[in-house]
Amino acid sequence: MIYLDNSATSKIDSEVLNEMMPYLTENFGNSSTPYSLGKISKKAVDEARIKVASLIGANPKEIYFTSGGTESDNIAIKGVAYSLKNKGNHIITSIIEHPAVLETCKYLEKNGFSITYVPVQNDGIINISEVKRAITPSTILITIMHANSEIGTIQPIEEIGKIAKENGIYFHTDAVQSVGKIPVDVDSLNVDLLSMSSHKIHGPKGIGALYIRKGLKISPIIHGGGQEQNIRPGTENVPGIVGFGKACEIAKRDLEKNMVQMTFLRDELIKGVLQNIKESYLNGHPEKRLPNNAHFRFTGIEGESLLLRLNLKGIAVSTGSACSSKSLEPSKVLKSIGLENVDSHGSLRLSLSKDTTLKEVQQVILELVEVVEKLRNISALW
Amino acid sequence: MIYLDNSATSKIDSEVLNEMMPYLTENFGNSSTPYSLGKISKKAVDEARIKVASLIGANPKEIYFTSGGTESDNIAIKGVAYSLKNKGNHIITSIIEHPAVLETCKYLEKNGFSITYVPVQNDGIINISEVKRAITPSTILITIMHANSEIGTIQPIEEIGKIAKENGIYFHTDAVQSVGKIPVDVDSLNVDLLSMSSHKIHGPKGIGALYIRKGLKISPIIHGGGQEQNIRPGTENVPGIVGFGKACEIAKRDLEKNMVQMTFLRDELIKGVLQNIKESYLNGHPEKRLPNNAHFRFTGIEGESLLLRLNLKGIAVSTGSACSSKSLEPSKVLKSIGLENVDSHGSLRLSLSKDTTLKEVQQVILELVEVVEKLRNISALW
Repeated sequence: MIYLDNSATSKIDSEVLNEMMPYLTENFGNSSTPYSLGKISKKAVDEARIKVASLIGANPKEIYFTSGGTESDNIAIKGVAYSLKNKGNHIITSIIEHPAVLETCKYLEKNGFSITYVPVQNDGIINISEVKRAITPSTILITIMHANSEIGTIQPIEEIGKIAKENGIYFHTDAVQSVGKIPVDVDSLNVDLLSMSSHKIHGPKGIGALYIRKGLKISPIIHGGGQEQNIRPGTENVPGIVGFGKACEIAKRDLEKNMVQMTFLRDELIKGVLQNIKESYLNGHPEKRLPNNAHFRFTGIEGESLLLRLNLKGIAVSTGSACSSKSLEPSKVLKSIGLENVDSHGSLRLSLSKDTTLKEVQQVILELVEVVEKLRNISALW
Repeated sequence: MIYLDNSATSKIDSEVLNEMMPYLTENFGNSSTPYSLGKISKKAVDEARIKVASLIGANPKEIYFTSGGTESDNIAIKGVAYSLKNKGNHIITSIIEHPAVLETCKYLEKNGFSITYVPVQNDGIINISEVKRAITPSTILITIMHANSEIGTIQPIEEIGKIAKENGIYFHTDAVQSVGKIPVDVDSLNVDLLSMSSHKIHGPKGIGALYIRKGLKISPIIHGGGQEQNIRPGTENVPGIVGFGKACEIAKRDLEKNMVQMTFLRDELIKGVLQNIKESYLNGHPEKRLPNNAHFRFTGIEGESLLLRLNLKGIAVSTGSACSSKSLEPSKVLKSIGLENVDSHGSLRLSLSKDTTLKEVQQVILELVEVVEKLRNISALW
């Protein structure tokens, strides 16, 4: 199988699984218990926290483990909204955020908050002046994703963070797609809160983290036994945390190497597709994009049919984000970069990993050429 | 090591881990994706849902996977509270609930809801007439745990459920400690919502479920990509779900056998301790208690010292629930069954598993006799 849907989820690294195994077997203690077995788990959680923090230039005390990216986004946004509701009720976000951010904002909108959804340009990049213009005296939070989960465009987070800081507004970024793929440093990016997910970087599913800058107090949305400094109570998912920690350690260690390799393969893929398939186009910004993301549209094609035909050839790709692809609605992200419905439906996301090879990329290009031609031959739109 | 803290967490069953392994390695697909690898995960999640449902006599469609018991409790209670806030603002619970319930209720209390905390008798059992008396026209929810996490007492859930039903009030029970230990059937128990946790029944940590009776609509507390019918969005934790499903299957298969065995060993333990250690007492109800729970108090002893000395002998036990044992405050549960602080501090929970042996129990009795004597010799209280 050639797996090019790493933005949906990625395979657990064997080094990561090895690190997890003792905590799935003998070291099964609850990390909140005071005897030796519990202490072993506690120590493992502490060490993982250091590794996660290190990947994003944070202090371990600023890392709170959650069950994943969606929960991190929810805690960050609702947490700031509820704790600052007496100060203001206005939040700024973008129209191309992940559903975990968009749906959370919509929920808050029904509960007394006012949301500005900043548009993006046709290259998928947010116009910073739009963010500036949206700020009001009651703005308490700006939440803009670092890299888009569909088209992979990287937003000018550093500059938006600077604007937020100058205006005394908290700034959250969903960095689920960017962490481990490009350098992410909470200080350089000027962020106060940052969401991470383990399973997008070859760690296990069901675990993630929220970075909260020291001194920032937010209201939790889950209440209970006080774990994770009351930000996220519940028995610690020790094997998950250990695996996530190891995945972060590896991501940091291999970041440069993986970036170079994935960028090269991504560009080979883009070049190969655009040169060999007529009326094929790249969605999103040509340079300001994740090293592992290639997002195409093909005139006269149904992306769904393309996906299914590629699946029969053992190639896994996506027509949208896994979190919204159940819906038959055209992608909101593609709509916001100006694509007509027919073009949205003819789009395909190919997301690489550090394990993707040149041979795989070359084969995918060949298969794409063949399948697109076949589909166009039977297409009423072509 | 002799591990007698299974109410805090339990070791993953080797059958469970075997079932999980393919999903931690080759079958890593995102279950919301439409290609073959995703379908494999989807099928595994569907099968696990059937197994979880089967253990509690529910329909698979009534099972929503969460990250654990704490989250299930939060979704259940806040979910009903928010969706019915226009109907009423009163919730009934007990004073001996898990922090996941108590802290959630306290949070709601600060946000416009009114909570009645029903007391318990000295045997740890709730007086049903107190529940009846607490009902007002604005009562929207009763949430009473099935079995207590500290003293193991089993509440008359069936009768409370009947009262709730007669009064048109929703009924939630935190069954984290009872599921897999005693028969749990959502229909017999008359419950509308029921919380479960995987790691208490030899499944992995970081996964749990909430049962919601068909037709009951609750407001989610996490928003995002629509997974788990919008009740709990976020990429499905496939290996966790698969492991939890297998743990439920095994728990159902071996329920009778395990109940008989644990009850026998628990009673041997209780008899051995009470007969061989003077001024030792059993906390909680002598019969209406979990088959795996023995909770003692020893006059003139600090439970903490007892725990640490036993730890040195390779025996893991608890002074309270892992979720509240970080605090130096005496246990609220023990206080509510009428124990003075000094007796609370001299208490110890020993929680067995299906893997506990008679030899282990006999050794623990011997060690307890010895350690209690030693500690009393140096105790100012004795």
